[in-house]
Amino acid sequence: MLTHSVEEGTLPNRFRKLWDEIAPVGRDAGSGGYLRYALTEPELTLRGWFREQAGQRGMPVTEDGNGNLFAWWGDPVAGDAVLTGSHFDSVPHGGAYDGPLGIVSAFLAVDELRAAGATPVRPVAVAAFVEEEGGRFGVPCLGSRLLTGEIAVDRAAGLRDAAGVSFAEALGDRPAGADPGLLGRFATFVELHVEQGRALVDLGAPVAVASAIWPHGRWRFDFHGEGNHAGTTRMADRRDPMLTYAFTVLAANKEARLRDAHATVGRVAVEPNATNAVPSKVTGWLDARAAEPATLDGLVEAVRAKAAERAKRDGTELTCTQESATPLVSFDGGLADRLAALLDAPVLPTGAGHDAGVLAAHLPTAMLFVRNPTGVSHSPAESASDADCAAGVAALARVLEELACR
Amino acid sequence: MLTHSVEEGTLPNRFRKLWDEIAPVGRDAGSGGYLRYALTEPELTLRGWFREQAGQRGMPVTEDGNGNLFAWWGDPVAGDAVLTGSHFDSVPHGGAYDGPLGIVSAFLAVDELRAAGATPVRPVAVAAFVEEEGGRFGVPCLGSRLLTGEIAVDRAAGLRDAAGVSFAEALGDRPAGADPGLLGRFATFVELHVEQGRALVDLGAPVAVASAIWPHGRWRFDFHGEGNHAGTTRMADRRDPMLTYAFTVLAANKEARLRDAHATVGRVAVEPNATNAVPSKVTGWLDARAAEPATLDGLVEAVRAKAAERAKRDGTELTCTQESATPLVSFDGGLADRLAALLDAPVLPTGAGHDAGVLAAHLPTAMLFVRNPTGVSHSPAESASDADCAAGVAALARVLEELACR
Repeated sequence: MLTHSVEEGTLPNRFRKLWDEIAPVGRDAGSGGYLRYALTEPELTLRGWFREQAGQRGMPVTEDGNGNLFAWWGDPVAGDAVLTGSHFDSVPHGGAYDGPLGIVSAFLAVDELRAAGATPVRPVAVAAFVEEEGGRFGVPCLGSRLLTGEIAVDRAAGLRDAAGVSFAEALGDRPAGADPGLLGRFATFVELHVEQGRALVDLGAPVAVASAIWPHGRWRFDFHGEGNHAGTTRMADRRDPMLTYAFTVLAANKEARLRDAHATVGRVAVEPNATNAVPSKVTGWLDARAAEPATLDGLVEAVRAKAAERAKRDGTELTCTQESATPLVSFDGGLADRLAALLDAPVLPTGAGHDAGVLAAHLPTAMLFVRNPTGVSHSPAESASDADCAAGVAALARVLEELACR
Repeated sequence: MLTHSVEEGTLPNRFRKLWDEIAPVGRDAGSGGYLRYALTEPELTLRGWFREQAGQRGMPVTEDGNGNLFAWWGDPVAGDAVLTGSHFDSVPHGGAYDGPLGIVSAFLAVDELRAAGATPVRPVAVAAFVEEEGGRFGVPCLGSRLLTGEIAVDRAAGLRDAAGVSFAEALGDRPAGADPGLLGRFATFVELHVEQGRALVDLGAPVAVASAIWPHGRWRFDFHGEGNHAGTTRMADRRDPMLTYAFTVLAANKEARLRDAHATVGRVAVEPNATNAVPSKVTGWLDARAAEPATLDGLVEAVRAKAAERAKRDGTELTCTQESATPLVSFDGGLADRLAALLDAPVLPTGAGHDAGVLAAHLPTAMLFVRNPTGVSHSPAESASDADCAAGVAALARVLEELACR
């Protein structure tokens, strides 16, 4: 194995230097956000960069047939490995840190450990999971769900992007699906991620350890009405699905607030979407999350009931389809406590889904969060200071040293 | 001039034969509706068909430099001409009849007059106006507005479609703009159109004459908020423009019903339009119409005020832009009464804009409506029976005989 010499400068400087290599990739000049959809050109560029970085560090790269990449410090088949890393893909016009921070930090943590002369007694693997956001094919954590067998290969292969390209076509092959052999070689997974709220700002701490991920899911509400002329159709004669949609958006907001839960309708599709036509169909996607599964069920049921009631009044028809569901994830309590003590870091729950949430059902898993001064996420306004990112790298290096080098 | 022999069969059969020539052009197999956007391939095919039909009838075709076509029975420069015709372009997934019926009926009416041995004492011109729906470049009646000087050439030239192509690029040249010379050669315009409501069904009549077009317009409501993560952002911390949009949709519906007016929000655009992101921006287009200008003004002002009030509550910002306005059009009362008496037809107002509404400010103008059994318009469900279409052709032939042959 090559030895990799840590370059001159402070850790924040080393972070900035590596970060600047990927900062321009997929950045939209208009919004300042990123368009790094899975397996499109910007994400493919980042995957190439991943292989280069691994190569420079003498880390062999394996691909699992589902689009997930692994760079290995140590023997890929030895087993008992410590997995870290995250994803490259973004939501439309997303921020720079969500995903890539976990990969960049992982390579830098390896550098830190090597510079300190640490020797892993078990392998360390850096992962780049594919389609974590579901921004292209609609199902989040697609790569980790495939690896763990939590989504059927047929369904994943047939998922299509907005242009009609299937996941199998984008991947260049039918995905391989569950790989218990590979999964069984990982002893632990630790994903570092930018925080997606303001808790660390309020606490005045740069890094936290995750306790749990709220149960959450996506529901598609299809409202069917009757397309008609906006100028000539009497209001009383209309069956306008936009009205039912609008009512449902407001109902989701109200019901979530009543329950201290989260409900969002951030995506809509209209047919024909013309100014002078009453729509024939409106589709809205509900993203709902709550601390407890029963609260989530009650929220979605209340929104569905209110939408159905309003549909009767509007003369429209509603079909509601659950597109994805992620149960409550409680991260390994012993591991979280151990890492929190090691790092002297607070422990926080989160409402955001992650590959760590999928893998947590299969192996001891933990997450580290890095402070985000704006608290804003899935937006160009998401940010993290170089000092806090360096604190994240140092924390991840300590965690890898603890888990892989002792 | 060539003489054109009317073919065998009944008028409904002759209508069907000609109609079937254009029925497949631009038809979407999925919806059954039409995608005949101005100056795209389907509409260009129909323009070619227009030239062929004119050629078969020995009618020279002129183009006005704005994209409008005219086929002449008689001398194009003689003046005092009777203009008829309509448009080929459709709204997205629109019906077959809206527009093309007026052009097909005009050619068949010329055939009827020739078969009956009628001789025009003044020229008859059949028009195909460009971009009547505004479905591609956003401004309805663009061709007639250019011809009459009601839209500035610079503004029209720079209008862009969803793919960024400008009207000037689509046209292949900068539009020519107002042409008072050409306009001055028309003495009268009569546009035949499928009815866009149920009035003729209720009256049990196949054809009506128009009295007026309601004043109407389009207003763009831009709601600016803060893009954020749907899972991690507390409801209280959000500035979600989808909420303000939804409230505005319901307010528009309520305010229109209170005033016996029409308000529609049938088009929406969301940024980033991702399931797991609170939107940063939502844009809705309000189409509003009323019998009286004061009612329309009151309606739009009420919707704007309610939207602004809700924006304060949601922490969002609203900008409201009027994109188009069409004042009340009262068609020439003497002409409408004369044609209603000639045809023994009822007289009806309409809420729909037409090129006839634009030209009515410049020359005596009338419209004929043909019964639509569904009353549905701007939708694949729009229809008209062959018998009623034949009644429309016969009515138009009588009108042209009255106006051009005496």
